[in-house]
Amino acid sequence: MRAWEKNCRRVEPYVPGEQPNIEGMIKLNTNENPYPPAPGVLQAIQDFNVDKLRLYPDDKSTMLVESLAEYYKVDKEQVFVGVGSDDVLGMAFLSFFNSDKPILFPDITYSFYEVWANLYKIPYEMPALDEDFRIKKEDYYKENGGIILANPNAPTGICEDLTFIEDILQHNQDVIVIVDEAYIDFGGKSALELIDRYENLLVVQTFSKARSMAGMRIGYAIGNKELIKIINDVKYSYNSYTMNQTSLYYGVEAVKDDAYFRENLAKIVEERERTVVELEKLGFTCTDSKTNFLFVKHSTVSAGDLLAMLREKNIFVRRFANSPRISNYLRISIGTKEEMDSLFAALKEYIE
Amino acid sequence: MRAWEKNCRRVEPYVPGEQPNIEGMIKLNTNENPYPPAPGVLQAIQDFNVDKLRLYPDDKSTMLVESLAEYYKVDKEQVFVGVGSDDVLGMAFLSFFNSDKPILFPDITYSFYEVWANLYKIPYEMPALDEDFRIKKEDYYKENGGIILANPNAPTGICEDLTFIEDILQHNQDVIVIVDEAYIDFGGKSALELIDRYENLLVVQTFSKARSMAGMRIGYAIGNKELIKIINDVKYSYNSYTMNQTSLYYGVEAVKDDAYFRENLAKIVEERERTVVELEKLGFTCTDSKTNFLFVKHSTVSAGDLLAMLREKNIFVRRFANSPRISNYLRISIGTKEEMDSLFAALKEYIE
Repeated sequence: MRAWEKNCRRVEPYVPGEQPNIEGMIKLNTNENPYPPAPGVLQAIQDFNVDKLRLYPDDKSTMLVESLAEYYKVDKEQVFVGVGSDDVLGMAFLSFFNSDKPILFPDITYSFYEVWANLYKIPYEMPALDEDFRIKKEDYYKENGGIILANPNAPTGICEDLTFIEDILQHNQDVIVIVDEAYIDFGGKSALELIDRYENLLVVQTFSKARSMAGMRIGYAIGNKELIKIINDVKYSYNSYTMNQTSLYYGVEAVKDDAYFRENLAKIVEERERTVVELEKLGFTCTDSKTNFLFVKHSTVSAGDLLAMLREKNIFVRRFANSPRISNYLRISIGTKEEMDSLFAALKEYIE
Repeated sequence: MRAWEKNCRRVEPYVPGEQPNIEGMIKLNTNENPYPPAPGVLQAIQDFNVDKLRLYPDDKSTMLVESLAEYYKVDKEQVFVGVGSDDVLGMAFLSFFNSDKPILFPDITYSFYEVWANLYKIPYEMPALDEDFRIKKEDYYKENGGIILANPNAPTGICEDLTFIEDILQHNQDVIVIVDEAYIDFGGKSALELIDRYENLLVVQTFSKARSMAGMRIGYAIGNKELIKIINDVKYSYNSYTMNQTSLYYGVEAVKDDAYFRENLAKIVEERERTVVELEKLGFTCTDSKTNFLFVKHSTVSAGDLLAMLREKNIFVRRFANSPRISNYLRISIGTKEEMDSLFAALKEYIE
């Protein structure tokens, strides 16, 4: 080891899902939305004034914060925006999880939680989901340094109701509880309605899934003003200008068009339900997903074989091969009807 | 204090330069480039395919990294990109400054260094610049946990030559030395030519100044492959997809057009030299700036009075009122000829 290496932070790098770029591929591996952003976004691109690029963006992201505040009927001091929900969650870990006691999150959940805890040297424990991949709420009654739950959970797709979330909050009023709602719009009920009653609750959402904007990198958190001030202070101490001009202008348009948003969601939910029926016919078991993906297991064929077969046909799905409890499952994003039909055809040919 | 507050990180938030938005204002307070980005950027905006927004960006930012590698004649494994140089520098602090010994940077320099050190609880010392605002290199010979120097320094604008930088490197081969070259293209000589000889050297630059892209938030670091791997691992552990699709597509175009870039730089440097002459006629002293701003002091009129007078005329310049050593100085960005003429006229009327 060279002398200068001694001061370097060594982390096990997170490996994101692959981003293949193959003509004609069917990409069902990263839960992107199969439909383009709202038409207003295209208009905003065409109308964008290039001269804005030479100027720093508004460091308060006012236009975007205000459009979210209006949409969710909260005060603008209750909204924090970041470079995708990963940025928001990373800042939240740094801002709110500073205890010697372990933070808590399930053994099977969004894998970045463990990565951030390691990065910032935050102690953590990962209580196991039960056999049906449900969170055991009693595991979250013990003393802890904070809690983060994805709801719906990933990659299981399972959503808990607000009674469940409120029970966790009731038992944890002395620490920050973060509910990561990346997939909430596909059928769950948001904990946003609890923020007035629980000042230690932070709800995090994203433009990447339901709003068709994964490429734009916009995430946000909503909570009481004090929490938002704390995370904003940390953000201003890290990078004042995180949201570039295009994020602000294009992002606002994606929030405006609620009719398009609802229509888009309905199509995806309908396609998800059709996919469940089709996959069950082929011998798959599916968890009760309230997201834009399904978490599935076949009765006889292994996930590894299915993944490899599909990849040969340029159909990409996701498998978490390094997590023993779920290594025989596939996570399949909901695409267009045509994409799902191609998936069914490929599976049918192989399985039957 | 409510119980949940005990785990919250409290930081003194950084207050960025104000971003006024007044019709007809002359904005010389945040060192933005007065000229728009290269014409290719406008074309890229017009050609941008909105469907890209629904997909995650390439997490490796390959197209942007490759264009920078080609431009600077380094390997693509030697280039790291981030959301403005603040993101790059913040990641670098987190990645490279993990010692119990203090890191070193001057008392007068980019104020974010102290903010990041506080945010990440990194011990630091700030050796004082000499009376002429020059770095005393002997101050950097002592044992330390790392060094960061802005060259040219901000807000003084003073640039050290490579012999000076190399002397610092010679005395500090066991720690990471970061040279922040946000303003290097306006007349300094980059330490990039030293990276092959000093594997502990990281050079950081930005698109915000010379490339007219402050609104796009693109910064980058160049160093040996091992350093870049370490900072990339930290980045992937924080947020895999930091650079949105527009940053990648528009950013590449800003690198391509070197003729436009050079021409733009020459205009700013010429205007800077004219500004020095004009300000000296009015009784100002200017440091020897190699940047796109001047750091100036008037022989009789206070900086506070000048700032207030200019603000009334919607001319914005920057003063660092909370730093006693420089509170009587103004930092004035170099704008267009017309903007500077308006500044001279306002100053002349007030002073004479």
